[in-house]
Amino acid sequence: MFFHRQELQFKSTPDKPDAVFARKLQEVLGGQYGEITVALQYNFQAWNAHIPGKYRDLLFGIGAEEMGHVEMLATMIAQLLEKAPLGITGDAVQDDPTVAAVVGGMDVQHAIVAGAGARAVDSNGNPWSGSYITASGNMLADFTANANAEMQGRLQVARLYHMTDDHGIRDLLSFLLARDTMHQNQWMAAAAELRAEGLEDFPVPSNFPLKKEHRPVSYEYINFSDGAAAAEGTWASGPTPDGKGEFTYVEAPGTTKTVPTPPPTHPDSRFYGT
Amino acid sequence: MFFHRQELQFKSTPDKPDAVFARKLQEVLGGQYGEITVALQYNFQAWNAHIPGKYRDLLFGIGAEEMGHVEMLATMIAQLLEKAPLGITGDAVQDDPTVAAVVGGMDVQHAIVAGAGARAVDSNGNPWSGSYITASGNMLADFTANANAEMQGRLQVARLYHMTDDHGIRDLLSFLLARDTMHQNQWMAAAAELRAEGLEDFPVPSNFPLKKEHRPVSYEYINFSDGAAAAEGTWASGPTPDGKGEFTYVEAPGTTKTVPTPPPTHPDSRFYGT
Amino acid sequence: MFFHRQELQFKSTPDKPDAVFARKLQEVLGGQYGEITVALQYNFQAWNAHIPGKYRDLLFGIGAEEMGHVEMLATMIAQLLEKAPLGITGDAVQDDPTVAAVVGGMDVQHAIVAGAGARAVDSNGNPWSGSYITASGNMLADFTANANAEMQGRLQVARLYHMTDDHGIRDLLSFLLARDTMHQNQWMAAAAELRAEGLEDFPVPSNFPLKKEHRPVSYEYINFSDGAAAAEGTWASGPTPDGKGEFTYVEAPGTTKTVPTPPPTHPDSRFYGT
Amino acid sequence: MFFHRQELQFKSTPDKPDAVFARKLQEVLGGQYGEITVALQYNFQAWNAHIPGKYRDLLFGIGAEEMGHVEMLATMIAQLLEKAPLGITGDAVQDDPTVAAVVGGMDVQHAIVAGAGARAVDSNGNPWSGSYITASGNMLADFTANANAEMQGRLQVARLYHMTDDHGIRDLLSFLLARDTMHQNQWMAAAAELRAEGLEDFPVPSNFPLKKEHRPVSYEYINFSDGAAAAEGTWASGPTPDGKGEFTYVEAPGTTKTVPTPPPTHPDSRFYGT
Amino acid sequence: MFFHRQELQFKSTPDKPDAVFARKLQEVLGGQYGEITVALQYNFQAWNAHIPGKYRDLLFGIGAEEMGHVEMLATMIAQLLEKAPLGITGDAVQDDPTVAAVVGGMDVQHAIVAGAGARAVDSNGNPWSGSYITASGNMLADFTANANAEMQGRLQVARLYHMTDDHGIRDLLSFLLARDTMHQNQWMAAAAELRAEGLEDFPVPSNFPLKKEHRPVSYEYINFSDGAAAAEGTWASGPTPDGKGEFTYVEAPGTTKTVPTPPPTHPDSRFYGT
Amino acid sequence: MFFHRQELQFKSTPDKPDAVFARKLQEVLGGQYGEITVALQYNFQAWNAHIPGKYRDLLFGIGAEEMGHVEMLATMIAQLLEKAPLGITGDAVQDDPTVAAVVGGMDVQHAIVAGAGARAVDSNGNPWSGSYITASGNMLADFTANANAEMQGRLQVARLYHMTDDHGIRDLLSFLLARDTMHQNQWMAAAAELRAEGLEDFPVPSNFPLKKEHRPVSYEYINFSDGAAAAEGTWASGPTPDGKGEFTYVEAPGTTKTVPTPPPTHPDSRFYGT
Ligand SMILES: [Ca+2]
Ligand SMILES: [Ca+2]
Ligand SMILES: [Ca+2]
Ligand SMILES: [Ca+2]
Ligand SMILES: [Ca+2]
Ligand SMILES: [Ca+2]
Repeated sequence: MFFHRQELQFKSTPDKPDAVFARKLQEVLGGQYGEITVALQYNFQAWNAHIPGKYRDLLFGIGAEEMGHVEMLATMIAQLLEKAPLGITGDAVQDDPTVAAVVGGMDVQHAIVAGAGARAVDSNGNPWSGSYITASGNMLADFTANANAEMQGRLQVARLYHMTDDHGIRDLLSFLLARDTMHQNQWMAAAAELRAEGLEDFPVPSNFPLKKEHRPVSYEYINFSDGAAAAEGTWASGPTPDGKGEFTYVEAPGTTKTVPTPPPTHPDSRFYGT
Repeated sequence: MFFHRQELQFKSTPDKPDAVFARKLQEVLGGQYGEITVALQYNFQAWNAHIPGKYRDLLFGIGAEEMGHVEMLATMIAQLLEKAPLGITGDAVQDDPTVAAVVGGMDVQHAIVAGAGARAVDSNGNPWSGSYITASGNMLADFTANANAEMQGRLQVARLYHMTDDHGIRDLLSFLLARDTMHQNQWMAAAAELRAEGLEDFPVPSNFPLKKEHRPVSYEYINFSDGAAAAEGTWASGPTPDGKGEFTYVEAPGTTKTVPTPPPTHPDSRFYGT
Repeated sequence: MFFHRQELQFKSTPDKPDAVFARKLQEVLGGQYGEITVALQYNFQAWNAHIPGKYRDLLFGIGAEEMGHVEMLATMIAQLLEKAPLGITGDAVQDDPTVAAVVGGMDVQHAIVAGAGARAVDSNGNPWSGSYITASGNMLADFTANANAEMQGRLQVARLYHMTDDHGIRDLLSFLLARDTMHQNQWMAAAAELRAEGLEDFPVPSNFPLKKEHRPVSYEYINFSDGAAAAEGTWASGPTPDGKGEFTYVEAPGTTKTVPTPPPTHPDSRFYGT
Repeated sequence: MFFHRQELQFKSTPDKPDAVFARKLQEVLGGQYGEITVALQYNFQAWNAHIPGKYRDLLFGIGAEEMGHVEMLATMIAQLLEKAPLGITGDAVQDDPTVAAVVGGMDVQHAIVAGAGARAVDSNGNPWSGSYITASGNMLADFTANANAEMQGRLQVARLYHMTDDHGIRDLLSFLLARDTMHQNQWMAAAAELRAEGLEDFPVPSNFPLKKEHRPVSYEYINFSDGAAAAEGTWASGPTPDGKGEFTYVEAPGTTKTVPTPPPTHPDSRFYGT
Repeated sequence: MFFHRQELQFKSTPDKPDAVFARKLQEVLGGQYGEITVALQYNFQAWNAHIPGKYRDLLFGIGAEEMGHVEMLATMIAQLLEKAPLGITGDAVQDDPTVAAVVGGMDVQHAIVAGAGARAVDSNGNPWSGSYITASGNMLADFTANANAEMQGRLQVARLYHMTDDHGIRDLLSFLLARDTMHQNQWMAAAAELRAEGLEDFPVPSNFPLKKEHRPVSYEYINFSDGAAAAEGTWASGPTPDGKGEFTYVEAPGTTKTVPTPPPTHPDSRFYGT
Repeated sequence: MFFHRQELQFKSTPDKPDAVFARKLQEVLGGQYGEITVALQYNFQAWNAHIPGKYRDLLFGIGAEEMGHVEMLATMIAQLLEKAPLGITGDAVQDDPTVAAVVGGMDVQHAIVAGAGARAVDSNGNPWSGSYITASGNMLADFTANANAEMQGRLQVARLYHMTDDHGIRDLLSFLLARDTMHQNQWMAAAAELRAEGLEDFPVPSNFPLKKEHRPVSYEYINFSDGAAAAEGTWASGPTPDGKGEFTYVEAPGTTKTVPTPPPTHPDSRFYGT
């Protein structure tokens, strides 16, 4: 069950209206790596978890916080739109280049569809999609997905930070940056703990019998481009991070190791193929 | 530039037709973590790279290999569909429960739209989407995304392995499993190397000035659910993986640390809100 | 069968080109509550209707009109784009801020993809989607959906009205506003008539046996937020609109009425979950 | 802010595994009118509300409950999948028609992608979309949208009720049916209260000056199909529900009231149109 | 303006219910090349046309017919679903493999969402998308798109013809096949007429100054794969269909004709790239 | 298998940064008719081909080239973004109308999400979709689709050519225009060759028995609009392009040739329809 309290985690009030920035903030609300994504992702991972205890509690514990981040961003977006010129004729859009530019850069659906409110979309107006969520039932894979989500998210917030000098917006972003720092650290710690406790390991899934995979190519770097520098990396020689092999470097395969493309298929003639 | 050679990396011929498995294979061809995703993701990351040398060469070197994996799966799918009953009336679909069941479990667009061929969709027929790609310009974030993609992908292939006992399909899957093992290791090695060389570090992005984030909450685990076990994790106490702080554990915030929800906004009356 | 006549319901010619407004008009052509939605929604409801006579005739009678509204908007959009600067270099986009602003606010696909023509998209360029349509086979539910669609549509047209002072555009909008007034009234009348004739009633579906639902919570307002004012509404006490109960007000549930989350599931180990 | 408690609103445990029904339940979890939709819709409406007090509290009060419904459905889906045959070879899918049929009717991504867990998709595997949400800033329009959502949702749950005789699933559905009864009544009561308090009225938006719409067609039923029965409805004569006019009935317009389609446009030749 | 008449172009009544075929028919109603696509595509092309007369009349003349094809398919789908077992428990789905297989192969949203009615989706339940439409403002390009649409459509209908032996369904398909024959011929004739009248020609757009394109590669077949047989085609030597050049055959380019990939970009450091 | 070489087909360096044009270029990279579409379309057609030899070699031979075009556009987009003002505050967006206009017209996700890099989206930010691909298994239909794709693509490139006077961009576009000229010619030649060799013919599919289609309407132009000029076209009289009939012209059908709409369906009452 979820409960709502009419409070926010942090105080932040924008200095002035800014419809263009309101649009940009939509990215971290409703984009691929926005707060809706992490809120639902962590909850779905909890619902799909297979062991009780600290890992599932962790997922639930942070999932609800992220819903509160959605709320903080939606609130900020509504405030930024409140007094901004959104294209109403009296605002003389057509004539004043500055105003026109602002309107040109805003999300017009903020005005037409939401009446100066936030929306469940990204900064280009693409609706949020359930396909953004990763919840596989395997925690080491999913915690890696979570770490990635918090890295991408913090990167986007850092970029947004430089796109405004509004103190109120920056306050909110500084709070989100700090929480993203926490969450990056947290998922890395949780991933390490899963391995330390022997619950899962690399390569994921670790208890798939390795002898069933085609081992001769399990640690080969095969170079399908002509850049020679890839041979210099730690991925081209030396021990592998999973502790189970040695990297080798192989140039793009010639015809000796490979096999001809099979002949074309001939399905039933009633499919009318050629 | 890309070049094509009419060979495959590995030989695998299915024992028999299987339209249901052909549909399932679509997941690792055209799903969120399928081969189209990694093929385009690695190439876009290369095109968006900002330093020349081994990292960019690595991205190019593997991006082209993944396009070849798309081809191997498409070829296998066409072979599985070639002689399978796909709903043609003479196959007596309506009357034979076994045949009907097979048709019930297949992707009907394999027959109607592609005439017994592969498609750029996942196992539920959702078209592949450009939103599956992550290419942020920041390599540590993106290599983490790549490691995740290879984990999710290997997990799916491992599950598929148990859904068939066809030797030819299993051969192909054993090859893909091995390459996913390599690629998981490779991205972990590359991420570690970025840090070792000081090119990037945690929290991503590491050169955003930490003093600009709201540091008091940068290492707090805040528990927004009522499961007590989350306090037992390494994410709740002790040093943080980024080496810059100490985790602390905080119960769900009460009203003292938080702020009231701001009053509702009042936009221009010509938006006709209530 | 459908027939087309090369006439429009209403005369409206724009005073001048306006590529930015052309983009905005796309919302009511191809957006979630645009004319394509209602045109196809009413027709699908007619095709899925289960009783002959006035209700189905009504759905057919208005479905075709809405197709004509799509046409009026497409025509207007093409006229607004006809002489507008759409980014051709000679228009000096780069140098003149006013022109640049206009181009910044237009839908660039109007120029690149449609060659100054209308498109089946909304004002942010999202393609129209079949998921916008509601046609459940239950007329009381669907007429409520229709009333909502006409309300949202009229709201958007009213907002657009204030975003231009072009007489020709306003003429068209004044016509659409009037038709939306009619259609709101019409669906409310039709919904009332369904109830008066005993064909359907609240709660929809009314002939599902009420004893099969968990009646103790059928009229409880349960407050999952901490705002106390919700208790003041007519939804918190007094008779219910369906005439079958009394509203009661309940504070957010404590642990006595609820049940613990079940333990995690343990699927087959070959799914490699954790 | 949102808080999570590890309890459910209602106890329901399925009698037995059922992967096909698990797939069907996805409709009311992640479909157009599923619980994710109403959970986010009510919260976005609250964030976009413009008056404090009972209406906004109502939106917050129920928004969090709906998140708990998502959780109940996700939990039930995981339980239904826990021991169900999901295509693992040992289950002899290929040979036993009954098992094959079950696998044919399940969501294969439940197995391949989620490892026997719930997903943010509908019963056909379409990912949930932010475009399902309606939050316009106008409460009378939005409460009508909400009433519709609860009607469509209850209709779907009622249909699902007849597709199983599992006591545990039916318990859960009986609870959801009762809450949908409440929520239908609640939104109708709230819509009526908005009107009674003069905050908004029909036609929405009511304070757009009626004289600016083209009044001659504001109450005309215009019959664009050839079904004569539409003339019998209350929408074709008598007073209109908004209390501001009289319905009239008009046959499909002839050429006297309409205007010729304008001539084609001639954009800049550098768009290369014909 | 559009008008509806309660008649169909052709009589066809299915012999018996068939929910699986109802699902398959959705492909040609709401798929990429289904009737909704051509109906809207032809109308958008008409609205975006730039010359009056026979071509625009042609587009309007057939656009309305296609809307009637949507109706015929929706009607047939509702009839096929009318008495079919759609998963209601009394139909003993769980126990009878034959029934289970049928339910496994149907579109479950036909039952849950539409109550045994047609939907605006394809045979895998993907909602119809506005992105299926092509309307560029250039008629030779668009008529080629139309010819393709009618070819793909007729191919799909032909495949469906072999998936049933129901006389009523086959009647309907035989009618659609004949109309697709007409429409393929018609678009080819119209494309030829555009060229004969000098309105447009190959390469489209023909009046873009050829000297502005990089002519040395305008007629080179460049072989980026290693299959030698492509050299045997008429596209590798001899005069070109546009009458303006001679095809030549070139092996995959070596390093002499090409240029090195430019060095990586270095954007502002505040994007935090690597 | 695919191989990558770190070279481009053609040299082109932009004169200056231009974020607005970078956005526009996305259309021909990741739009419906962009290079990703043709790259994957030609490869899927090759994988779904049913005859070996020149046609399949052709598809492979050009598919890889198109991947190189994706790369050239991605490279150009990154170069155009490299030094462009992308909204960083120091660029004084808010104050300078010219800068603001540029930012208004750019793709904000280029900055926030990709850190000044290219993305797999179109010029409105819609992610590329697998539904853009056509690969039916029938080569005459598919080569027509390919010809259309190259026409639409060249049309878009020609329009883009006039939207800039940057020499470097124009160099790139002049190269793409030339290759589109080649590819239009090539697909037309290949389609003609298929017919000349008797592998397929019009109407597609040509070996579906014509006697099974409803021949009386196979060559009738039926006019569902009231424009009389359509009768003047070659599609209204004379021999048909498939050489198998004569066009006839028929006015919109009256009630004698058509049939009444069937009565509504009555599904099981447990679907709660009306
Ligand atoms: Ca967050
Ligand atoms: Ca791979
Ligand atoms: Ca309308
Ligand atoms: Ca609910
Ligand atoms: Ca048709
Ligand atoms: Ca190309």
